Amino acid sequence: MTRQKVGGLIVLFGATGDLASRKLYPALYRLYKRQLLTQHFAVIGTARRQWDDDHYRQVVSQAISDLVDDQDLCDRFVSHFHYVPHDATDLDHYQVLKNKMDGLRQDYETGPSTLYYLSTAPAIFPSITQYLKEANIVNNQGEHRVILEKPFGSDAQTAKSLNDALSQTFNEEDIYRIDHYLGKELVQNILAVRYFNPFIEAIWNHHYIDNIQITLAEDMPIGSRGGYYDHSGAIRDMVQNHILQVMSLVGMTLPEHRSPHSIHEAKIDFLKSIPSYTPEQVSDNIVRGQYHSKKAGIPSYLEEDEVAMNSTTESYVAGRIMIPNERWQGVPFYFRTGKALANKYTTVQIVLKPRHYKEENLLLRDRDKPRLSFNIQPEEGVQLYLNEKRAGQDLLPQLNALVGDWSRESNYAEDPYEKLIYNTLLGDPTYFTTWDELAEQWRIVDAIIAGWEKMALKELPQYPIMSQGPKEADDLLAKDKHQWIDY
Amino acid sequence: MTRQKVGGLIVLFGATGDLASRKLYPALYRLYKRQLLTQHFAVIGTARRQWDDDHYRQVVSQAISDLVDDQDLCDRFVSHFHYVPHDATDLDHYQVLKNKMDGLRQDYETGPSTLYYLSTAPAIFPSITQYLKEANIVNNQGEHRVILEKPFGSDAQTAKSLNDALSQTFNEEDIYRIDHYLGKELVQNILAVRYFNPFIEAIWNHHYIDNIQITLAEDMPIGSRGGYYDHSGAIRDMVQNHILQVMSLVGMTLPEHRSPHSIHEAKIDFLKSIPSYTPEQVSDNIVRGQYHSKKAGIPSYLEEDEVAMNSTTESYVAGRIMIPNERWQGVPFYFRTGKALANKYTTVQIVLKPRHYKEENLLLRDRDKPRLSFNIQPEEGVQLYLNEKRAGQDLLPQLNALVGDWSRESNYAEDPYEKLIYNTLLGDPTYFTTWDELAEQWRIVDAIIAGWEKMALKELPQYPIMSQGPKEADDLLAKDKHQWIDY
Repeated sequence: MTRQKVGGLIVLFGATGDLASRKLYPALYRLYKRQLLTQHFAVIGTARRQWDDDHYRQVVSQAISDLVDDQDLCDRFVSHFHYVPHDATDLDHYQVLKNKMDGLRQDYETGPSTLYYLSTAPAIFPSITQYLKEANIVNNQGEHRVILEKPFGSDAQTAKSLNDALSQTFNEEDIYRIDHYLGKELVQNILAVRYFNPFIEAIWNHHYIDNIQITLAEDMPIGSRGGYYDHSGAIRDMVQNHILQVMSLVGMTLPEHRSPHSIHEAKIDFLKSIPSYTPEQVSDNIVRGQYHSKKAGIPSYLEEDEVAMNSTTESYVAGRIMIPNERWQGVPFYFRTGKALANKYTTVQIVLKPRHYKEENLLLRDRDKPRLSFNIQPEEGVQLYLNEKRAGQDLLPQLNALVGDWSRESNYAEDPYEKLIYNTLLGDPTYFTTWDELAEQWRIVDAIIAGWEKMALKELPQYPIMSQGPKEADDLLAKDKHQWIDY
Repeated sequence: MTRQKVGGLIVLFGATGDLASRKLYPALYRLYKRQLLTQHFAVIGTARRQWDDDHYRQVVSQAISDLVDDQDLCDRFVSHFHYVPHDATDLDHYQVLKNKMDGLRQDYETGPSTLYYLSTAPAIFPSITQYLKEANIVNNQGEHRVILEKPFGSDAQTAKSLNDALSQTFNEEDIYRIDHYLGKELVQNILAVRYFNPFIEAIWNHHYIDNIQITLAEDMPIGSRGGYYDHSGAIRDMVQNHILQVMSLVGMTLPEHRSPHSIHEAKIDFLKSIPSYTPEQVSDNIVRGQYHSKKAGIPSYLEEDEVAMNSTTESYVAGRIMIPNERWQGVPFYFRTGKALANKYTTVQIVLKPRHYKEENLLLRDRDKPRLSFNIQPEEGVQLYLNEKRAGQDLLPQLNALVGDWSRESNYAEDPYEKLIYNTLLGDPTYFTTWDELAEQWRIVDAIIAGWEKMALKELPQYPIMSQGPKEADDLLAKDKHQWIDY
């Protein structure tokens, strides 16, 4: 099956930044190498620095150098890149930009498709979008899409303000909010496994599923990101976006037609079914923590640079969500994420109900139950832990891991950014977050944060660096007679 | 979990035979090594030859020599073996046998458990059982079990005559009819996977299963076995027993309590639901074949030793059975078995229904559908062919084989005979064939043979040696738009 080729004009705000070099230029080059990006594309990099095209192209060349095995191809690629020094808060600068855009559209025959990539500090998103309209760059003619990185606000209110600003210039269907987890193969595979195996979807309910565990564990401490992280915490940084998105893909009703619109509708319905916790429910269902070090030279969370001395920001959060609908009655959705943990891995464990052995009166641990395991990173793949016959005389169960071989798939490691940028140029919003989803995600997270603000500090436990997290997270599951399935 | 230890007196008819040396002595020695066979056992070997204990023990030692790593253990083991020359058709000889049995029961304190192992030509089974009763060896006191090898009759009538003869002496629950396929781990695993994974049993019906394919393929031609085989053919040799037993384990309703009795009842119910084909139905649903060689020095079936020149005996048979009940409506059970095929392997393929892609209008081949695969031999293991996301941009399915790792199970290769003999000594008839099952199996097979007898010879196709079988077997599935899943 041949993929559709894409082209167009890309205007990149924040072209001198780290993200652009680490992710965007390599992603575009990979698309170009695969001939998915046609010759009819051009990139205008903008930022305050007074670079010129030559310097910019050197930066881009440098950013993609690991991927280059054909210098001619590389040279042709970077010849599509142009630089315009730009103060995003000065309307006059947009006129220069507009002229440059008009010129490049003609030079490269890019067609009407224009993508505005906002890779700047979120604080200036409103200025950019306002001036794009005032300068008549974005208007009713042509195809104008905007793509944004997280964070999208810091609570429901700031997110709404930001969204209102964007909406002055762009239609909702043209706003592509990146959640790069949605670009990961194994996250997308959750949808594929549900769609393409009717026997799996048949058991995707409380009759056969015992509990669901979503873990996004990071082994690194916050390092130099204290200035950002201490105002965000694990719940804004990971739960509000990645965890709730992954949970939606697992928990939503699978729409018959897999159009982007119907998938988003299904996710929104699922998110709406997650309750806004009261402070008491937060205390019962959510656990937070801060990492703590006893070794000299290895800082505890409170000792990290740019972290407030008495900060109550959580570097770890775990939670339990019950979905009050027919499909999921009685099935806890557990999640956890944190920094400075023992391992770096992301998994979704669909723990299946074992047969109830009255005669043997076993109370099985979750890791001894059959389960479907989506390993998202670092290893990618789906595993089925199936009960089979224990070798020997008796008819007794033994769990056996059925493992797929992904190594045969040469291009499996396609980068999330590559896919998401291609999706945007194609106009496919399936793997982006809509405003309605974001609004629900903030509603859920704001209630948890509000609960924490009323809590005593004793409910902010510490956990050792390189551990599985605070003991309280184990207690949370123990109340339901469940246990975390660790790496 | 500790297994129960077993002992008792074993009287073996046919002690000088090939089967005894290849299978029984090694199986008993393995049980002894595992300390599942106590010191309280004795074996009386009988046959016409005038051996003595010493010679018999040498034969047994030779038979187990590959398994011996402790000569003392071996010596102790063979000291339990005694030989009695015996004419099974002479009542007087049974008195000698009885005296020997009484003596050994005392010497070894074997307790009341006695096992009669009939490893002779089936023609003398009736004499043996008759005289065992007349000589008052088997009576209402003690525990008397008899274990028999196949073949059990050559049609329903001869099987019934044989069974009637056995029943004069033994109770049905004490008759252990060996089908060594039921001793195979991966055949038993069909039950385990169904029992211990409620989510599997939930989809074990026509809503989720597309078709079922049972293949017992052999690569060897009949060789020196023409004298037996030409009177048996593939249908008596393989379908009447192994294939119908495996099919029962797949197709039966799983009884809530897994007692031997309720499992047998469930299998009988399933076998009863298989129709007796009319000659026309045989023509439509059953394909037979004879192998054919074009190479000098490699005989065709009709050129094999002891095969009748104009033999119509089939060396291959394939069939299609529809089960007229709620669970299996519309799901074909296909089976095939034959000699001189391309590969030697036994598998059960549970082909699952794929999602119906209206938009893509695909007519998927069976091997491209998701499926659960029980590989019985030569490789053992369960595989799930799961539809996952094809690597890359689009949400498209790609079948991925999830494979278990059996190499971790050190004792997985437990021999079927070891298990079945242990079962018999323990008194567990789960993995043996009851008379009611056998009667149903012969009913089904007799109808097919009767159909063949009315058929023109053109319906006995030839197939090339080392092939997948006759083309007509492919046509059989093609009528249903299905295809065999080959090795």
